[in-house]
Amino acid sequence: MFEITMLGTSAAVPTPHRNLSSIAVRKDGDVYLLDCGEGTQRQMMKYGVSYMKVKAIFISHLHLDHWLGMLGLIETMNLNGRQEQLTVYAPAGLSDFAGKRQFVKFVELKEGALADFGEFSVSAFATKHSPHSFGFSFQEKERRRFYEEKAHAAGVRGQLFSKIMKEGELKIGGKKVLLKNITYLQPGKKLVYTSDTAPCAAVAKAAKGADLLIHEATFTDEHEAEAKEANHSTAAQAAQTAKKAGAKKLLLTHISGRYRDAAPLAEEAKKHFANVSVAEDGMKLEI
Amino acid sequence: MFEITMLGTSAAVPTPHRNLSSIAVRKDGDVYLLDCGEGTQRQMMKYGVSYMKVKAIFISHLHLDHWLGMLGLIETMNLNGRQEQLTVYAPAGLSDFAGKRQFVKFVELKEGALADFGEFSVSAFATKHSPHSFGFSFQEKERRRFYEEKAHAAGVRGQLFSKIMKEGELKIGGKKVLLKNITYLQPGKKLVYTSDTAPCAAVAKAAKGADLLIHEATFTDEHEAEAKEANHSTAAQAAQTAKKAGAKKLLLTHISGRYRDAAPLAEEAKKHFANVSVAEDGMKLEI
Repeated sequence: MFEITMLGTSAAVPTPHRNLSSIAVRKDGDVYLLDCGEGTQRQMMKYGVSYMKVKAIFISHLHLDHWLGMLGLIETMNLNGRQEQLTVYAPAGLSDFAGKRQFVKFVELKEGALADFGEFSVSAFATKHSPHSFGFSFQEKERRRFYEEKAHAAGVRGQLFSKIMKEGELKIGGKKVLLKNITYLQPGKKLVYTSDTAPCAAVAKAAKGADLLIHEATFTDEHEAEAKEANHSTAAQAAQTAKKAGAKKLLLTHISGRYRDAAPLAEEAKKHFANVSVAEDGMKLEI
Repeated sequence: MFEITMLGTSAAVPTPHRNLSSIAVRKDGDVYLLDCGEGTQRQMMKYGVSYMKVKAIFISHLHLDHWLGMLGLIETMNLNGRQEQLTVYAPAGLSDFAGKRQFVKFVELKEGALADFGEFSVSAFATKHSPHSFGFSFQEKERRRFYEEKAHAAGVRGQLFSKIMKEGELKIGGKKVLLKNITYLQPGKKLVYTSDTAPCAAVAKAAKGADLLIHEATFTDEHEAEAKEANHSTAAQAAQTAKKAGAKKLLLTHISGRYRDAAPLAEEAKKHFANVSVAEDGMKLEI
């Protein structure tokens, strides 16, 4: 399970209602940030996400509205005496900034597998943007779960659950019990975030079967030419990608400041993909 | 007259209720920023201060909470196609950042007269802080005003007002009229901002007779030792300085995040100086 808090949902420039890009993903008490625009630390305070619990920050690209807040956040952590490592995954240009406090470890972004956090892994994929930008896929690992009735019938009780889970088979009351016969594999959840991108095949591929695709949707149909020129997406294009990917749910973010009312974005997206919402600052979801 | 909007009033780290340091001073349609902490551009939008009207930014010192927002603000100006010069007065270390857009002119801070904006001038004074920090004094120029009755009695009418103002004397109905006999000098308003400082004589000197002294007051009496160690001031120390300076009004800002309720700061200050308030984000004043 991933708990997602939308910390900032505005494109390029903040508005009184939307701060710049950042998403907090909570997993087992730790926090992972996807982008970290100016003002993110204050959004975290406002929406109850602990900045001391941040384990890693993923910065998609070098546009200032996606990373400036990282500097303030790192200073605040430093003032609070942070010792534990904070890992920053970001394009090369940020290493000078990211490396200036001792607790920060900088990892240069590249496509493919990026990090394994035990319960889940993170990979990066290149999107279509200028400057070069990355999206991120959070893939929870599959978990073996007991069929309660089958386990009970086989005599599995108390500590035998962890014992058979570890050993794969057990003798119970003279009978051999195989783990595979009393368990199943529960697939892990998949969360995909595009950050800035024009529509492209790489996103649809990375988002294949995602439980949640968080896709930028800077513009409505009316501004499709502008979206194309700036390597951004319209809400309809994001929805078409979600459909192509077979994603279960789509959340639109990185909304241009011109849309005080985001309803037109949702309406245009719904023509292509039913399970879609437009993000607001402070919105929380679980997958 | 100066119109002041308190954009951010928190020390070091923002809180849900206070953003990081920044003050907007409006004069004749232009805006001047005193410090520019992270999130300032959004505070401007929230409190109705036009970021395109910013003519100059004064950065007191190189602590990140006093200048990071300048980078986001400059990028937003750039996205909006800004051409007019923006002057940044700041310590030397900021010149790389400040200089990266063509419309930005960087001026390195030094003590003394800094800029003349026609109706008023700005000077800087060194305060007691680490790293080296500056305070700023905005001094409106004195203006010559007519004694209405005397001018009327001397026969000054219509365009003669501007004519005698320009020439110093006029012949009206065969009589010589001297400007100095029908006018007086109205003193200009004086606004002084300390930014971060321990109590020091330089502040009291700079704030002499100020109509408004905006003084940092990071701590209450209880934390005086902590204030001293960090080269900050308590509310009582700020009030003592205002008294020593003979300032007319004192506004306390740069409040530690530990004070959700700022009343104790005001109470402690009032023991030394009556006309004192604690700033809140969005507070507007005129002097």
